[in-house]
Order: sequence, then structure tokens, then C-alpha cells
Amino acid sequence: MYLWVDLVTPSIPERLILSDTFHFHPLAVDDAMSEIQYPKIEAYDGFLYVILHGIDFEESRNCFATHDVDFFLGTTYLVTVHDGTSRSMAELRDHCPRNTKLLGEGPVALFHRIVDSMVDHYRPEIDQLEERIDRLEAEVFADPTPNVVREILKAKRDVAGLRRIVQPQRDVVGRLARRDFVDISTEMSFRFRDVYDHLVRIADDSLIFQDRITGILDAHLSNVSNRLNEVMKVLTIVSVIFLPLMLLTGAYGMNVTLPHMPGGDAAQFWWIAGLAAAIVVGMLLYFRRRRWL
Amino acid sequence: MYLWVDLVTPSIPERLILSDTFHFHPLAVDDAMSEIQYPKIEAYDGFLYVILHGIDFEESRNCFATHDVDFFLGTTYLVTVHDGTSRSMAELRDHCPRNTKLLGEGPVALFHRIVDSMVDHYRPEIDQLEERIDRLEAEVFADPTPNVVREILKAKRDVAGLRRIVQPQRDVVGRLARRDFVDISTEMSFRFRDVYDHLVRIADDSLIFQDRITGILDAHLSNVSNRLNEVMKVLTIVSVIFLPLMLLTGAYGMNVTLPHMPGGDAAQFWWIAGLAAAIVVGMLLYFRRRRWL
Amino acid sequence: MYLWVDLVTPSIPERLILSDTFHFHPLAVDDAMSEIQYPKIEAYDGFLYVILHGIDFEESRNCFATHDVDFFLGTTYLVTVHDGTSRSMAELRDHCPRNTKLLGEGPVALFHRIVDSMVDHYRPEIDQLEERIDRLEAEVFADPTPNVVREILKAKRDVAGLRRIVQPQRDVVGRLARRDFVDISTEMSFRFRDVYDHLVRIADDSLIFQDRITGILDAHLSNVSNRLNEVMKVLTIVSVIFLPLMLLTGAYGMNVTLPHMPGGDAAQFWWIAGLAAAIVVGMLLYFRRRRWL
Amino acid sequence: MYLWVDLVTPSIPERLILSDTFHFHPLAVDDAMSEIQYPKIEAYDGFLYVILHGIDFEESRNCFATHDVDFFLGTTYLVTVHDGTSRSMAELRDHCPRNTKLLGEGPVALFHRIVDSMVDHYRPEIDQLEERIDRLEAEVFADPTPNVVREILKAKRDVAGLRRIVQPQRDVVGRLARRDFVDISTEMSFRFRDVYDHLVRIADDSLIFQDRITGILDAHLSNVSNRLNEVMKVLTIVSVIFLPLMLLTGAYGMNVTLPHMPGGDAAQFWWIAGLAAAIVVGMLLYFRRRRWL
Amino acid sequence: MYLWVDLVTPSIPERLILSDTFHFHPLAVDDAMSEIQYPKIEAYDGFLYVILHGIDFEESRNCFATHDVDFFLGTTYLVTVHDGTSRSMAELRDHCPRNTKLLGEGPVALFHRIVDSMVDHYRPEIDQLEERIDRLEAEVFADPTPNVVREILKAKRDVAGLRRIVQPQRDVVGRLARRDFVDISTEMSFRFRDVYDHLVRIADDSLIFQDRITGILDAHLSNVSNRLNEVMKVLTIVSVIFLPLMLLTGAYGMNVTLPHMPGGDAAQFWWIAGLAAAIVVGMLLYFRRRRWL
Repeated sequence: MYLWVDLVTPSIPERLILSDTFHFHPLAVDDAMSEIQYPKIEAYDGFLYVILHGIDFEESRNCFATHDVDFFLGTTYLVTVHDGTSRSMAELRDHCPRNTKLLGEGPVALFHRIVDSMVDHYRPEIDQLEERIDRLEAEVFADPTPNVVREILKAKRDVAGLRRIVQPQRDVVGRLARRDFVDISTEMSFRFRDVYDHLVRIADDSLIFQDRITGILDAHLSNVSNRLNEVMKVLTIVSVIFLPLMLLTGAYGMNVTLPHMPGGDAAQFWWIAGLAAAIVVGMLLYFRRRRWL
Repeated sequence: MYLWVDLVTPSIPERLILSDTFHFHPLAVDDAMSEIQYPKIEAYDGFLYVILHGIDFEESRNCFATHDVDFFLGTTYLVTVHDGTSRSMAELRDHCPRNTKLLGEGPVALFHRIVDSMVDHYRPEIDQLEERIDRLEAEVFADPTPNVVREILKAKRDVAGLRRIVQPQRDVVGRLARRDFVDISTEMSFRFRDVYDHLVRIADDSLIFQDRITGILDAHLSNVSNRLNEVMKVLTIVSVIFLPLMLLTGAYGMNVTLPHMPGGDAAQFWWIAGLAAAIVVGMLLYFRRRRWL
Repeated sequence: MYLWVDLVTPSIPERLILSDTFHFHPLAVDDAMSEIQYPKIEAYDGFLYVILHGIDFEESRNCFATHDVDFFLGTTYLVTVHDGTSRSMAELRDHCPRNTKLLGEGPVALFHRIVDSMVDHYRPEIDQLEERIDRLEAEVFADPTPNVVREILKAKRDVAGLRRIVQPQRDVVGRLARRDFVDISTEMSFRFRDVYDHLVRIADDSLIFQDRITGILDAHLSNVSNRLNEVMKVLTIVSVIFLPLMLLTGAYGMNVTLPHMPGGDAAQFWWIAGLAAAIVVGMLLYFRRRRWL
Repeated sequence: MYLWVDLVTPSIPERLILSDTFHFHPLAVDDAMSEIQYPKIEAYDGFLYVILHGIDFEESRNCFATHDVDFFLGTTYLVTVHDGTSRSMAELRDHCPRNTKLLGEGPVALFHRIVDSMVDHYRPEIDQLEERIDRLEAEVFADPTPNVVREILKAKRDVAGLRRIVQPQRDVVGRLARRDFVDISTEMSFRFRDVYDHLVRIADDSLIFQDRITGILDAHLSNVSNRLNEVMKVLTIVSVIFLPLMLLTGAYGMNVTLPHMPGGDAAQFWWIAGLAAAIVVGMLLYFRRRRWL
Repeated sequence: MYLWVDLVTPSIPERLILSDTFHFHPLAVDDAMSEIQYPKIEAYDGFLYVILHGIDFEESRNCFATHDVDFFLGTTYLVTVHDGTSRSMAELRDHCPRNTKLLGEGPVALFHRIVDSMVDHYRPEIDQLEERIDRLEAEVFADPTPNVVREILKAKRDVAGLRRIVQPQRDVVGRLARRDFVDISTEMSFRFRDVYDHLVRIADDSLIFQDRITGILDAHLSNVSNRLNEVMKVLTIVSVIFLPLMLLTGAYGMNVTLPHMPGGDAAQFWWIAGLAAAIVVGMLLYFRRRRWL
């Protein structure tokens, strides 16, 4: 027999349950009420206080959001406090009435089940982030918009934010798996080790993502330079071909007596045209030799 | 019953209180008097000597400033030494006469209260720093002034300065929370753990800030390159279109007999204009195919 | 006497061998069935559960692929689960009937033999990766295609993927060599130390590879900049030589009375040509002094 | 009663004092005689052997120089070996005859006094290095000479050299402060903790300096790119305005019959001038809209 | 009395000495025979197995090469296996007949002597590497050839290769100095501490080298950008001066009636020349104000 109390954005009177009924330490109660908390685990006299984070993808803002769930884990009770956005908690509450076995293994097993479900919800978000990075990589090489650097920077921040949540979460679960706390049985530590493995992989993924984003930014800079090179080659080739030709026509536009080439007046034009063609061919050969064409 | 002695920029005779009345170790007294000290905690016989830093934002110089507060914490007394700029100390002295409970829990609780208040004052400064970084990021993408690199470098230094203060501070409070020192009760260690969590988050924030500033600088460099690309494209497009046209007009300005196109003298101009239009259209198609337009 | 059970992509009934015959822990059985697992070693009551990775080069996709092999190592049995792509397992099954000594030293020796063979198969893949990096380095300096950055990024990802597999693998074998688990005899720990040395070298290689790829990317960026410099020098040299010449011919094309140089009308042209030649020679000397030529 | 022997660049016979009179271990004697040694502390039977570095700024070469001082610290003696350039040693020898208290606290106190004085001499050098970095930062933003990169690289090397000396020095003094060696009394360990704090700050400063120099180099590269952008904008604006105008004049220089604008012959020029003015105004508006002006 | 067996590229029968006479563990014998081994130390029953690396500079390939020497160190014997290229071993074998004291201190002292000599041979190679880096740094600032990036990358690889060898070597000798193994006397540990100091310095040097090479590459990139800036300034200055002049001459080449300046026909030219001079002077003043000249 044990008690599961699930408080969803508790009102002031409901908060009294924590402080007056359960007599939890005021600091733990304060933490459970406050907004921004990092994942952590703290042993108090008679109970463990755990903060873990679930993950959501906010479609509207196209970025990650996390919500924290607070656990008070005693030998005969589990108290959970959250803001109602956790899908894991919602699913569990739905399934409970139909599936009595779900609750039958004691508070630690119930706690493990919630944690496991929360960590399972990370995977699709991780996959979506990976897709975004794949898309950015493809875009950088294919047809980068001016916006791509901003997108890269945004992905970088999301990955940093993910690491910021996952790493302490991994350490919390790792401590449960290593049985740093006496309330955890061997059997339960095996289960937490399983969750821990998941979190290690996610933390590892986020490191890989970070590396890839750095690589994408490097590639983007390299591509920008390459494209500048291409632009400058076009400008240089055109200038180098046309400037001599323009000098030639300019020279024949001078109001001075130019040397007369063999042939009549009409032949003069063809001499010039021939010289121009020779210049063009010579330049093209020069560029070919330099591998610019 | 315990004693709280608060020394504000002590005069020479007041300093004798430390050395002659309390018989503190001369090195600790020297540290308390000296200007630049990093946060640290040191155990001496019979008392703990702690240096912590409060934070201020200097409007005039638009940068961070910190002031250090020195604590001598004994079992029956708390001696604080500071330069009077600490808001936490000022508030506490204001509240004391009205709120007797404030002082009623012994010197360690009083010490905790000061430390907690000092750390609470960090938050608005952190937020302001984050705003500055947000503004820099927006500016880099929108309309960077030549000054933006200097601003970025300045923010980078402020973040480095913040880390330099927060990390040893975090470690000091962490040692109090882990009860490395016998004078700290379990209850007090819980409270210091709470302060420690705050400092961990602030230290974490400063790491994130550093990452973001690096990202902003990278983005800025990338944007500068992109803008150079844009400038060069305009130059190249204009040159590639006008140089052939200028060659054409130059050729018709030559003082030689040019081949006569079908039609009368007036038609010659329209032949040339048609050829020029063909050149322009051809070039525009070329640039479109290269996605420069 | 001991038992070796080798399960290749076990069907549902075969899986019952793990859970019902051997009574392995459900979490270990789940891990053995699941797809993506990192190398790890876990002690359960009565057996060690080990995941290791073999390596394959997929010709078709020109990248690395790894397959995991799961080991259940007890005192009187070894159970292996894999998907049939492991060459080490295939070879061992081939050799067994002919070479009875192969199986004669107990389950730990058999386990070592498989691990050793799997690690031996890494070497050719590592060599191939090194060749690819050599080729990229040569290409960057010789005749880089626009694709080279993409190739570099791909190699970088492969190296990161390799490290991701090799480092936990190294740690797993290191724990076997350090005899963290009681089932390993001194003699066996010597053998695992040997495998461990191989994995340390491979992990070290992958770090060196990573460094080299960073260097190659830097060199590529530097080369792109150098080539831009070359292009711009050609443009500048041509412009600086031809613009003054074109001004000269333009000046002589003006419909105003120009100062008459000494000599007759025919001499005027040679004055101009001489001036032009002087300009060209002067510019060339200037460029030579600046070491642009 | 104890003995202080101060050997300044000892001659061969003087060296015998170390080996034959004090019977120090040959390896320690060899180290004391050799030129390049890093700060370290070594316990031998009956004495501690310590190498520490003083710092000098060589005006002539405008860079740091360090000299090492070797200490043999026994219970009844202190032997110091150095090359005579140490200001700390010179000052102490000057003060000794006048100040008997200076020597009265035993060899460890004397040793501490020397070390403290040596570390105090670091501060002005650190300040000077900081000034150099400030100057480089100002120069990079104001009016960088081509030499500035070289200066930055030089400062970087000096900072690296400083770290190379300070970090082992800090660790040596840290071990004395932590009382890793039995010869150090609690009182003395407090004093060494004080010196240790100084060295921690200096080591910290050198890390900050390194960060700043990296930032300065980044800023310099960014500024170079910015200036290139400025140069290219000027070129592009001028080209984009003048090329169409030159085409216009070129067109009116053609030896063909051009369409006659309304008005007499003299009006033709004003039509052209008006068209030219329209082109210039249009281009300027375009550049203003692109924020290039 | 002890035995020193020195095997130079042992033939198959000679190898039997290791396995059959000394009964060394097969894995140690295998390692001694295999080609590529990292420095390591391994304790077997009754003997220590050590691999260390000597260093050679291969003139022909202008890069580092290392050869490994294997040691089997027992209480009554030292067995060394190498390929004959070790200068330390050659020197020792030469000196032995003449200097009986050389061998008189037991196998550990002999082992130390070889190790010490091998480490001493590193210094000239380190110095040569430093010279190469000095030369690269000078070249980057003075007159960089296109090959300089390749040279830098090559030096970077050599430094990485050096670190790869020196760091495990340092750790091996460090373990001998810390007396992790019972066979080492205090006196011997002092001697190994001396060798350890050398290796620490060499490892430190290699880190400094790596930093410097990174700095050199940064400086090179910065210089390339600077030179591009110079090139573009020349192009821009010339274009900005000549395009207006060319427009002027083009305007006076138009076949329309231009406004007549005061003065006769001959004066017209001087009006134009004056205007041109005014344009040139104005542009030069503009560039001077922008500090481009």
C-alpha cells in the first residue's frame, strides 16, 4: 500500500498538502513551486526530492521547450508536482484506472515508469532536431539563403539548451542507477540503468549535433568564399578580355593619323577585328592554362 | 546570544577590533583589508574566513563591477567587513530593527541570509547581460554598425569577468552545502544547497553566454563575407553588362570604314541598339542561370 | 564443459531461450533485441552482459557501418546474439568443427577470441579511412573540386562516428583487463589488456584523424583565400595598366584642339605610343617592386 | 639557530659545499646547477628541494625573462642557489644586517619570505603585460599597422610563457599550503596559502589574457574584412555610376547618325547631361536603399 | 650478478630465448616482436615489460621517425629487443667493454641508463623542430610562398606525432618515478624522477609548439587578407581616379555641340586638363583622409 498524490499547478491551499500534511522541508517545497529549476536529486530526511524535465516541441515558436516535474519519493508515497503539460503524466493518469498492475509495484517502480516515459518522449524531438540539422547541411551546400546563418545559430542554441537539460538529468538518473541512495533496490537500479543508457545516448547525440553544426558553419563560410572566388573570376575574365579590346577601339578613335595597314580603307576594319580575335583567343588560352575556365 | 559586528570601510582603529579584540589571524585580517580578493573560504582555528562578491552594474561605465564582502564566522559571532556599496548589507541593516526574527537563528543563519541576498542580486544583472547579448545578436543580423565587434568583445570580457567571480563563489558555497566544515548544521547545509543551486545556474548561464557570443562573432564574420559577396556581385554584373556595350560604342567610334548593315544611315543606329539589347538580355539570362539575380 | 549458444537474428520462439531457459534479466534481453545500442558492460547476478560493435565498410554508401554483437557470459555458458553480418562470428563458426582447441579453454577464452577478432577487423577500415584523409589532403593542395568541403565534412562525421563507437568499446575492454569483474582470471586479463592496447591505438588514431581533418579544412580556406588573391592581382594588374592607356586614347579622341607635339602629323601617333609604352613599363616595374609579379 | 647559505652562480669549489658539506643528493645538485628547470618541489631524505622562478622584464628585448632560484630546505638550514639577478634575494641580503627579526623565525619562515617577495615582483610585470594587451586592443580598433598581427602573436607567446612558469609554481606553493610535507607548521601553511592565492590570481590573469588576445585577433580579422568591404563598396559605387555614363558618352561618340532629340544642336548636349544626371541620381538612390551610403 | 641480453631484430631461433629460456608471457613476447607499439609499462609475474621510443630525424624524408625498444626487466636480468637503429643502445654497447662501472649497479640502473640516454637524444630533435617553427613564423611574416600552408600543416602533424609518443612515455617513466612497481628502489625512483622531468618539459614544449603553429596559421590567414586589402586598394584608387577622367574625355569625344568655355579653341584643352587635375587632386585628398594612402 502506498499513496500517489499528483498536484497539477497546485493552488495555495493545495500547497499546504506538501508543507502541512507531508511535512516536506520548506526548501524542497519552495523549489517545487518555483519556475526555473535544473534537473537535480536531493536527499532529505525520509524522502528523495527529484526534479526532472520533460521535453516539448513548440510548433508555434519552432523551438524546444521543457517543463519540469517535481517528485517527492518516500517509502510509502510518491508526490508529483507539475504544470499539466507533461504528456507522460497525462498518459499515466489515463492508463491507471484500466491497468491496476501499473501501480502495483510500489512508489519507486511508479517513479521509474514516469521517468522512463518522460525520457522516451525525448526521442522524437531529438530526431526532429537531427532532421533540422540535416536540412541545414543540405541547404548550405545547395542553395543557401541569407537566413541560413541565423538558422544555424538558432539550431546551435537549441542544441546547447538540450545539453543543458540532458546532462544533469543523465547524472540524476545515473545516481539512481548506481544506487547512491539506499531506497533503490537492485532490481530498480537495473531499470534506472536502462533509462540512464537512453540519456547517455541523447547526451552523446547532442554533442555530435554540436560538432556537426560547427562543421556546417565552417562549410558555409568556405562556400561563401568559394562563391566570391567564382564571382571575382567572372569579373576578372570579362575585364581582362574587354579592356584590351576597348583600348584597341579607343586607339582607332583617336584624331591622329594612324599607321595604315596593307589593303584599302575597308580592309582596315578587318585588320582590327583580327587583332581583337587574337587577343580574345590568347586570353582564353591563358585562363584555361590557369584552370579558371 | 551572539554578536554581529559590521565594519564599513574600517578606519585604522576599527581594524584593531579584528586583530586585538577577536584575535583573528593576521593573514585573514590582511586579506579583509586588501582590495582585490577572489571568493574563497578558509578554515582557521575557531573561525571560518569567507570572501564573497556582490555584483553591481555601473551605469556610467556600462559594465559590471563587483565588491567583496569579508566574513569572519565563529560559533558566537559574525564579523562582516565591506566598503558600504553592498545593497544586501544595507537592506539587512535596515530590516533588522523591525524584524527581530531575522537575527534569531544564530550566526550561521545570518551569514546564510546575507549570502542568499547577495546571490539574489545577481539575477537582474545576469538578465541585463542577456539582454545586451540579445541586442548584439539582433544588431549583427539586422544593421551592424562598425562598432559592433567592439561591443561583442566588451560583452565577452564582461562574461569572462562574471565567470571569474561566480565559479569560485559557487565552489565556496558548494563546500558549505557539502558540510566540509563542521560548524554547519544539516539544516543550514540544505539552505546553502539552495544558494548553491542558484550559483550553479548563474555559472551555467555565463557558459551559455560565452558560447552565444562566439556564435555572434562567427555570424558577424559570415555576414560581412556575405555582404562582400553581394557588393562584388553588383560590381561584376554591372561590369559584365557595360564593358561589352562600351566596346560596341567604342568600335563604332573608330575612324575607319565599318561594314555597312542593310538599311540606310539612320538604320545603322538601330542595328547597334538591337545588338546592345541582345547583349544585355543574354547577360541577364546568364546571371539568372547562375542564381546571381 | 560449457555451452555456446549463438543466436542469429533470433525469432520470437528463439528469444524464449534467453528469457525462459537461461532466465536472463528482462532488461538485458530487451537490450539484446533492440537495434541501437552503444558498447557497454553490465554485471547481472550470475552473468556479464556485454555489447560490442563490429565494423563494416559499406561500399554502396561509401561510409562506415557498425553491427552490434551481444554477449551473455556466465561461468558455464556463452550466449551470443547478432544479426549475422559479423565476419568474426562467421569465421569462428567455420573454424570450430576443424579446430577443437578453439573452444577448449572455457567461455571467457572463447569470448576473448571473438572480441579479439572483431577488433582485428577494425584495422583495414581505419587504414581505408586514413587513405581517404590522405587523398583529401592531397586534393586540397592540388586541384580542389567544389565538392571537397562536402567530402571533408563527411570524413569528419565518419571519424566522429568511429570515436563514438571505439571509446566506449575501449572502456569496456579496459574494465575486463583491469579485472573489475571477478570472473576474469589473471591470464585472461593479460589477453584483454592486449585487445585494450589495440583499441587505445584505434581511439588515438581517430583523434589524430580529427585533428588532421581540421587542419585540412583550415588549409582549404587558406588556399581559397590565396586563390582569390591571385585572381584579384590579375584583375588589378590589367586594370592598372589599361585604364591609363584608355584615358590616353580617350583624350586623343576628344573633339578639341590638342597641343601639337614636335614632328609632323604622322609623328603624333608615335609620341602617343611611346607614352603608352612608358606607362606600361612603369606599371610593370611598380608591380615587380611590390612582388606581385 | 639555523644556517642560511646563499650561493650566487657558484664556482666549482663552491659547488662542493652542496655535495660534500651538505651531502645533498647528486640529482638535486645537478638540477641546481643546470640552466633550464621548471618550478617543482621534491622531497629527499632530510630536505626539500624546490625550484621557483622570479620574473624580469627585459627592456632591451621587450619580453619576459625568468630566472630560477633553487632552495634546499632542511630543518636547520636553508641553502639558496641563483644567478644573482633575483631582486628578491638582493633586497633580502640588503635588509638582513639591519633587521634581525627578518631571520629570527627559522628556515621555513625565511623561505616563505623569499617566495613571497618573488611572487610580489610578478605583479608589476603582469600589469605591464596587461597594458600591452590594452594597447594592442586599442590599436586594432583605431589604426592598425601591418605589424599588429606580429605584436599580437608575440604577446600570445609571452602569455603562454607566463602560464608555463606560473602554473607549476602555483602547484608547488599549493602543496606547501596543503601541508603535503611534514616540515611545514600550520602557521606556515597559512602563510603559503596567502602566497598561493596570489599565484592563483596570476594564473587566472594569464588565462584571461589568453582569451583577450584570441578576441583581439578575431576582432582584427573582422576589421580587416570590414575594411575590405568598405574598399569594395567605394569601387563598386564608382564603377556602377561611371560605367553607364561612359557608355552614354561612348554612344554619342559613334560615327553613326543618332536619333535627334527635340531642340536645336546645342540642346542635344543638355538632353545628354540630363540623362546622365538621372542615371547618377537613380544609382545613388539605389545605394541609399541598400544602405551602402 | 645479473644478465643483460640484447637482441637486435632477433631471428626466429633467437626469439625462442624469450619464450623458452626466460619463459616470458606469450603476449609480451608477441608485443616485443610486433611492429607498431605505443610506449607502455606492464607488470607480469616476475618481470616488468616496458616499451619505450627513441627518436630519429630522417634527413631524406625531412620528418620524425621513432623506433621502439622493448625491455624485459627482472630482478636478475634485463632483456632488450630492438631493431638496431637505436643510437643509445649502440653507444652503450660500445662503452661497456671500457667502462665496467657502467654495468655494476644492477639491471634497474642499467635500464635507467638506457632510458636516460634515449630521452637525451630527444633534445636535438626538439630543437630542430623549434627551428623549423621559427623559420615558418619568419616566412609567414616576410615573404610567404604558396607552399607555406603545406609546410605548416606538416609541422603540425610532426608535433602531433611527437605528443603521441612523448605523453605515454612520460606516463611510463612517471610510474617508475612514483614507485608504482615494487622493484624500484628509492634511489632509482629519484633517478627516474629526473628523466620524468625531462619528459614533462618535452611534452610541454610540444604543447607550446602546437599553440605556436595555430598562431602561425592564424597570422598567415590574417596576412593573406591584409594583402588582398592592399591589392584591392590599388585597384580601387586607380579605378576611382581614372573612371571620371575617362568620362571627361569620352564626353569631349561626343559628336554633339558642347558648351564653349571662355577662351579660344586651344584654351578648351587646358580647361579640360585643369578639370582633370582637380578631379585627381580631390580623389587623392579623399583617399588620404580615409588613410588609404
